[in-house]
Amino acid sequence: MTGNAFDRDLDRNPANFQPLTPLVLLERAAKVFPNEVAIIHGGQRVTYATFWERSLKLASALARHGIGKGDTVSVMLSNTPPMLEAHHGVPMTKAVLHSLNTRLDAAIIAFQLDHAESRVVIVDREFSDVMKEALALAQVKPLVIDYDDPEFGEDAPYPKGERIGSVDYEAFLASGDAGFTWSMPDDEWDAIALNYTSGTTGNPKGVVYHHRGAALMAYANTVHAGLSRGAVYLWTLPMFHCNGWCFPWTLALTAGSHVCLRWVRAKPMYDAIAEHGVTHLCGAPVVMSALLNAPEDEKRDFSHTVTFNTAAAPPPETVLSAMAEAGFTVTHLYGLTETYGPAVVNEWKGEWDALDGAGQAARKARQGVRYAALEGLTVMDPETMTETPPDGETIGEVMFRGNIVMKGYLKNRKATDEAFAGGWFHSGDLGVMHADGYIQLKDRSKDIIISGGENISSIEVEDALYRHPAIAACGVVAKADEKWGETPVAFVELKPGRTASAEEIIAHCRSLLAHFKCPKTVVFSEIPKTSTGKIQKFRLREQARELS
Amino acid sequence: MTGNAFDRDLDRNPANFQPLTPLVLLERAAKVFPNEVAIIHGGQRVTYATFWERSLKLASALARHGIGKGDTVSVMLSNTPPMLEAHHGVPMTKAVLHSLNTRLDAAIIAFQLDHAESRVVIVDREFSDVMKEALALAQVKPLVIDYDDPEFGEDAPYPKGERIGSVDYEAFLASGDAGFTWSMPDDEWDAIALNYTSGTTGNPKGVVYHHRGAALMAYANTVHAGLSRGAVYLWTLPMFHCNGWCFPWTLALTAGSHVCLRWVRAKPMYDAIAEHGVTHLCGAPVVMSALLNAPEDEKRDFSHTVTFNTAAAPPPETVLSAMAEAGFTVTHLYGLTETYGPAVVNEWKGEWDALDGAGQAARKARQGVRYAALEGLTVMDPETMTETPPDGETIGEVMFRGNIVMKGYLKNRKATDEAFAGGWFHSGDLGVMHADGYIQLKDRSKDIIISGGENISSIEVEDALYRHPAIAACGVVAKADEKWGETPVAFVELKPGRTASAEEIIAHCRSLLAHFKCPKTVVFSEIPKTSTGKIQKFRLREQARELS
Ligand SMILES: Nc1ncnc2c1ncn2[C@@H]1O[C@H](COP(=O)(O)OP(=O)(O)OP(=O)(O)O)[C@@H](O)[C@H]1O
Ligand SMILES: Nc1ncnc2c1ncn2[C@@H]1O[C@H](COP(=O)(O)OP(=O)(O)OP(=O)(O)O)[C@@H](O)[C@H]1O
Ligand SMILES: [Mg+2]
Ligand SMILES: [Mg+2]
Repeated sequence: MTGNAFDRDLDRNPANFQPLTPLVLLERAAKVFPNEVAIIHGGQRVTYATFWERSLKLASALARHGIGKGDTVSVMLSNTPPMLEAHHGVPMTKAVLHSLNTRLDAAIIAFQLDHAESRVVIVDREFSDVMKEALALAQVKPLVIDYDDPEFGEDAPYPKGERIGSVDYEAFLASGDAGFTWSMPDDEWDAIALNYTSGTTGNPKGVVYHHRGAALMAYANTVHAGLSRGAVYLWTLPMFHCNGWCFPWTLALTAGSHVCLRWVRAKPMYDAIAEHGVTHLCGAPVVMSALLNAPEDEKRDFSHTVTFNTAAAPPPETVLSAMAEAGFTVTHLYGLTETYGPAVVNEWKGEWDALDGAGQAARKARQGVRYAALEGLTVMDPETMTETPPDGETIGEVMFRGNIVMKGYLKNRKATDEAFAGGWFHSGDLGVMHADGYIQLKDRSKDIIISGGENISSIEVEDALYRHPAIAACGVVAKADEKWGETPVAFVELKPGRTASAEEIIAHCRSLLAHFKCPKTVVFSEIPKTSTGKIQKFRLREQARELS
Repeated sequence: MTGNAFDRDLDRNPANFQPLTPLVLLERAAKVFPNEVAIIHGGQRVTYATFWERSLKLASALARHGIGKGDTVSVMLSNTPPMLEAHHGVPMTKAVLHSLNTRLDAAIIAFQLDHAESRVVIVDREFSDVMKEALALAQVKPLVIDYDDPEFGEDAPYPKGERIGSVDYEAFLASGDAGFTWSMPDDEWDAIALNYTSGTTGNPKGVVYHHRGAALMAYANTVHAGLSRGAVYLWTLPMFHCNGWCFPWTLALTAGSHVCLRWVRAKPMYDAIAEHGVTHLCGAPVVMSALLNAPEDEKRDFSHTVTFNTAAAPPPETVLSAMAEAGFTVTHLYGLTETYGPAVVNEWKGEWDALDGAGQAARKARQGVRYAALEGLTVMDPETMTETPPDGETIGEVMFRGNIVMKGYLKNRKATDEAFAGGWFHSGDLGVMHADGYIQLKDRSKDIIISGGENISSIEVEDALYRHPAIAACGVVAKADEKWGETPVAFVELKPGRTASAEEIIAHCRSLLAHFKCPKTVVFSEIPKTSTGKIQKFRLREQARELS
């Protein structure tokens, strides 16, 4: 007899133990709410029954093609119904969904397809040119399926490429059987998705998600984003980015409606809010700017509460106050591809409502506290693995631990081991712990500027720059300097019709920051951003090198 | 190299895998919302910081007493703060919380203490007499701790018994250390709680819950009961019953407030709703009746939405319509001790709002569909383990499968094996599957009446009886009959001041039911109920035997 009485004859069996997976959530929604609208896409309305049936057909067609456990199915799709179907249909076959960023170039797509050993590619006709090039470069020879979106008119602002596949998505689906017997994962630790990091800081790595984490994210997102029955979710966040922060699975929990969106532009966003009663949307601060800077005739009135969940960068104060005025509730989230998207939430406290605008913005700028489904979040000295004091000042590396941290990097044991050294996931983000337990990012490991031995947070300098009324976007990086080692250089994009001189901007910074932190050089130019709205610091660093 | 690339070098480690447990939820609430009110008890207000600290002190004091993994800590407490503290403090030591039904007699308490090998008993002075008797009968010699509730006045409607323990609860807590290092469970499958079945159908069995199930219930309850930040939960459901359907853990997820209640009476319930802004409460239909039948001067007005989650028995139509009129939203849940409380929810569909009162009540009477955290729910022939047709007619046994089904029965391998035979948990409840996938209970295995070879659902007959305006409560059981095998006998409790004859009642039933289903005998008497408001059919069956 082993252990105590509570361990004896009380083993797992199919009646009391099933692998956690988000797939049972869509199954339930389809059974309970078959007639409710699961997906709105232009003129299309897809019910939950149909969403489920189409996902089953996709799974069946894939299985007939020989796809099964551990196989990779790659997709290069916009925020359209097939992308939602792939999130369920692919794992129903025990295969892994690999979502490609639709802005990638052919070389990197080819790299990913080969690295992932992709067996099937589903590609939207918007991206067929680059995919064709990529397939020519790649070693793998996947089955290629074209998706020809009926809502993508020939007169659309972006050109529709040729068909490059051997079969059309709808025809492929039609070859599947809606009576397909889908599979629970053998183990909740089995992979469900593969997402390559966006490559801001280095070579893309293949982040592997498991069913357990995806299921827990469905619950945690529901709680932290405040989703309830009848939620209407607008797809402004790309679904290829951390699986849309796991919202394709999350919405199934409360049987909410997805509103698809091919291109993130202000008018269709406002139209969706006004016409479909959108309650939630997510995106980088740049999406908020798009909403705010829309021409007046594209804006629409709405009286219901719309929650905007933002991550990728701290929301600037001016954007926050403008969003509040425009009738949006903003929730600030933080996470990484490695944490299934958001794993940290700025939990807003009632007592903060009494602060003035700047005080509230300062609180809102903190990344916050752990998601309920994340068991640990802290700031540590990565060398000693000791926690930094919660003084809001001492910079350390943000560390994560828990069930919504990735399995690891695909075929990259070294990177995986490094990322998990000491039993914590090393985020590469530098931040501080405040006395109240909220973390705040100060920089990324590679973005910190060391000038005369002093650390300068590029975020802090950027914050100061953003307070200048003429500045629309900016990025601060290090420039090599003989005397100081490094000095900050500011890249600045001005608002249309505004002017400002370098001297004026430096003076502005000096009024807010210690002198050693102020940019020595100001470069006026358009700021390069990733598809997810993040400033591409490595590009700025390249430009800074050329300045030296 | 084993398996595919998605399995290689991607193992569990402390950074990406932690045991699921509800304990991290209270830890988070205390850290994020230290100053918010966690518990209201009469004049007391306990913040989340204090709730956490007191739970830690309880854990520390227990650990100093030698309590650790696999030990049992028994509590016989009302819905008071120590009961909430025990739900967290006991598992923090890796021990198991055993909650005693406060209405039990000494013999059965002694049986449970011995069977559970209890090492500590915490007892409220309301129950010290019966506990003293039980301890005299029991073999085990646990440490006994008295809880002397300051809100339990000497002038209370129930007498306060003597102190029987060796230490007072507050003194015991004071001996603990708030800096205690609490333990995550070694495994999420480890036991967290022990609840004996209420014994409606047989010998009490010790149902063992694990951390995994309790954590998942916290998420699922939040979703299905519609809890959000700021929820105020009134404790009308006994916390000893399936750990209060896991709500002591659930509320921590959204940092809601618990409103304690020693005795379930109408006036304090209305006062709590009006004064503390209660948003949610749970209970058997009898609690709804208590609210509805309150004298007018005890009722209070409220304008906010109050959700009443009811289970234990299907809510009668008259009660449902009266609740709606009184301003409550009623959600119908169903579950068993073996399923952590509710595991089935009557998901209300918008399209049903168009039905008339009777039509709506008929829909609401269905137990419904699986909780999101339950992976399987069906109706089967328990012999063949094949599903019954979804025709709303064919009776079978309701079967559960999933992560919110118990580990099993403590030290009762035979009962555990029987309960899990064929990979499904056999509920002992008889029901039908409707075409829309909603289940409806028709009876319990032992309650079905077989008359002339025909099955008669006692619930169906009771439903008909409840439509008689003079009937307050009723129960229908089988009576042996030479000719028919069995015939139904109705036990009927009339409303105060109302009269009705047996003939009249039988005629009423005949107007609604097939004749063979109508009671042949009507007995007027008070209906015996369990502490959780369920009619004790076995008592009625005893009385029916005496009639023969
Ligand atoms: N709320 C936020 N505030 C500030 N920075 C954020 C926020 N949310 C996310 N980030 C930044 O985004 C990073 C996560 O981005 P993501 O995983 O999408 O790709 P990436 O890290 O930019 O790419 P790569 O890892 O290849 O360099 C975080 O590490 C952090 O630096
Ligand atoms: N919504 C409901 N409608 C009808 N019956 C219900 C409902 N909810 C619960 N029940 C009944 O309550 C039972 C679960 O009760 P519980 O586990 O508390 O103890 P018990 O089953 O009465 O006791 P024992 O198992 O010892 O006989 C279910 O099996 C079912 O018969
Ligand atoms: Mg990264
Ligand atoms: Mg039972």
